Amino acid sequence: MNNKKFDIQKGHFYAVGVGPGGADLLTLRAVRVIEESEVIICPKSASARSSLALDIIKDFVRDQEIIEHVYPMQRSQEQVENSWIKAADIIKTHCLAGKTVCQVTLGDPNIYSTCAYVMPLIEEVLGRDRIHVVPGITAFQSSAANFPHPLTTQEDRLILMPGSDLNAVENALKSCETLVLYKAGKNLPAIVRLLEKYDLASKAGVVFNSEMPDREEVFSSLDEALEGSRSYLACVIVYVGRKGWKTVD
Amino acid sequence: MNNKKFDIQKGHFYAVGVGPGGADLLTLRAVRVIEESEVIICPKSASARSSLALDIIKDFVRDQEIIEHVYPMQRSQEQVENSWIKAADIIKTHCLAGKTVCQVTLGDPNIYSTCAYVMPLIEEVLGRDRIHVVPGITAFQSSAANFPHPLTTQEDRLILMPGSDLNAVENALKSCETLVLYKAGKNLPAIVRLLEKYDLASKAGVVFNSEMPDREEVFSSLDEALEGSRSYLACVIVYVGRKGWKTVD
Repeated sequence: MNNKKFDIQKGHFYAVGVGPGGADLLTLRAVRVIEESEVIICPKSASARSSLALDIIKDFVRDQEIIEHVYPMQRSQEQVENSWIKAADIIKTHCLAGKTVCQVTLGDPNIYSTCAYVMPLIEEVLGRDRIHVVPGITAFQSSAANFPHPLTTQEDRLILMPGSDLNAVENALKSCETLVLYKAGKNLPAIVRLLEKYDLASKAGVVFNSEMPDREEVFSSLDEALEGSRSYLACVIVYVGRKGWKTVD
Repeated sequence: MNNKKFDIQKGHFYAVGVGPGGADLLTLRAVRVIEESEVIICPKSASARSSLALDIIKDFVRDQEIIEHVYPMQRSQEQVENSWIKAADIIKTHCLAGKTVCQVTLGDPNIYSTCAYVMPLIEEVLGRDRIHVVPGITAFQSSAANFPHPLTTQEDRLILMPGSDLNAVENALKSCETLVLYKAGKNLPAIVRLLEKYDLASKAGVVFNSEMPDREEVFSSLDEALEGSRSYLACVIVYVGRKGWKTVD
C-alpha cells in the first residue's frame, strides 16, 4: 500500500473505536490493532452480562488476552474514578512489560468515551508518544444513515450534546441546523414535548441501539418513538433547518 | 459472522464514506461495497489532477468501471447544480440497467458531502429503498486523534461548522465546550485573531490534509499554524472548556 502506515508497536497503548455495533463498521486500522494487540481491555457496565464492545470484535479475537473491565454507570465522578485508576494500572503494567495493549470502545474514543479519563492516567508513565487513538464510526453517523437528510451541507452547523439538560437542548435548537442528542432514552418524553413546542417532532428521528444486531430500532418521526425501547443507547437527530444549499427539487 | 448483514444488491446505489485519507481508515463495510460495486463514481474538483477519494480506494479497485466526475468548487448553488444533475443521470442509468453503483466521498456522506445533493435527485426514479449510506470516519475525528484532549466528555457540547462566517464562529464559541471548524484554510489568520481575543489560540489545534499520505500537517497550537499549508482540507479544533467530568490529575 502506498498509504501512510499506522504503526503498531510493542509497549504502546491504543484506544480503539469499534463503531456503534456490528463488526463491519470497524475500520481496517481498528481490525489490525485488535489482531496485533496482545492484551485487549473490554469495558462493561456493572450490570451488563457481557461487554458490547467485545461482542462486536469477537471475530477478530484469537489468542489475545481479554480483560473485561467494569466501568460502572454512576452519577458522580468520584464514584467511578476508582475504575479508571484500576484500568490505567492494568494498561501501564502490561505496556511496561513490553506488550501491545488496546482498549476497545463503542463509537469513537474521543466522543463520550471512558478512554478520555484513562489516557491521562497512563500518560505520565508511558509518555504521550506511546498512546494512540484509532477513530471509530459514531452512533450519530450510523443513525443518520437511516434518514433521507444530510447532517450538514455548506454553512450548516451541527451540535452534538447529551439530551439530559432540557434548557441546554432548547438553547441549542436556536443556533444550529442539525441537533444530535445522545443518551436521550430516559428523557425522550420530555424531549418530544420540547420539540413539539417548536413544531420539530416530525422533523426528528431516533435510533435505539444503532447497528446492534437484532436490537436496532429506527423511528423516522419522534412522535412514534415513544413506543421504542428507551435504551440508554438512543440517538435523536433533529433536522432543525438548512442554512446550506438546498437539494434540487 | 453473527452480525447484522449489510446487504449489497443489484440496481442499488451506495454513498460510501471513505474517511479522511489513507485506505486503512475505511470500514470493512465500505471495502465490501467498493469491491462488489460494478460502477464506482469518484468525485474530483475541476482543478484537481485526480480524485482524492479514488486515490484512497485504489487498492480495492479491480475490474469495476471507474467514472471520475467533476464537482466544481463554486460559490453559488446554481453554478454547481448541473454537475449534480449529470451525476444523478449517470447513477440512474446504471442502476436501472441492474448494476450495483457506488459513489465514494471523503469523510462521511452525510457531513458536508456532495452526495447530499445527488441522492434526492435519484430518489424519485430509484425509490428510497435502493439508496444507502455507508458512514465514514470524518476529518474531525482523525484530526482529534492527534491531540491529548477528548472531543466530548459527559455533558459537553460539540459544535461542527465551517470557519467561513466569523460572527457565527464567535457566537458558537460561547455555547460549546468543543468547536470544530471545517474549511478553515483561507480564513485561518482571521480565526487565529478571533481566538486570541478569547485567549483560546493556544487551546486550539489544526490539522491540514488529515491522514493524507505525505501531506498531513499537525499543529497543536493555532499560533504556530499560520506557517502551515492553508489547504482547503483544514480542520481546526478549539478546546473551549469542559462541562463534563475532568480527567484525574
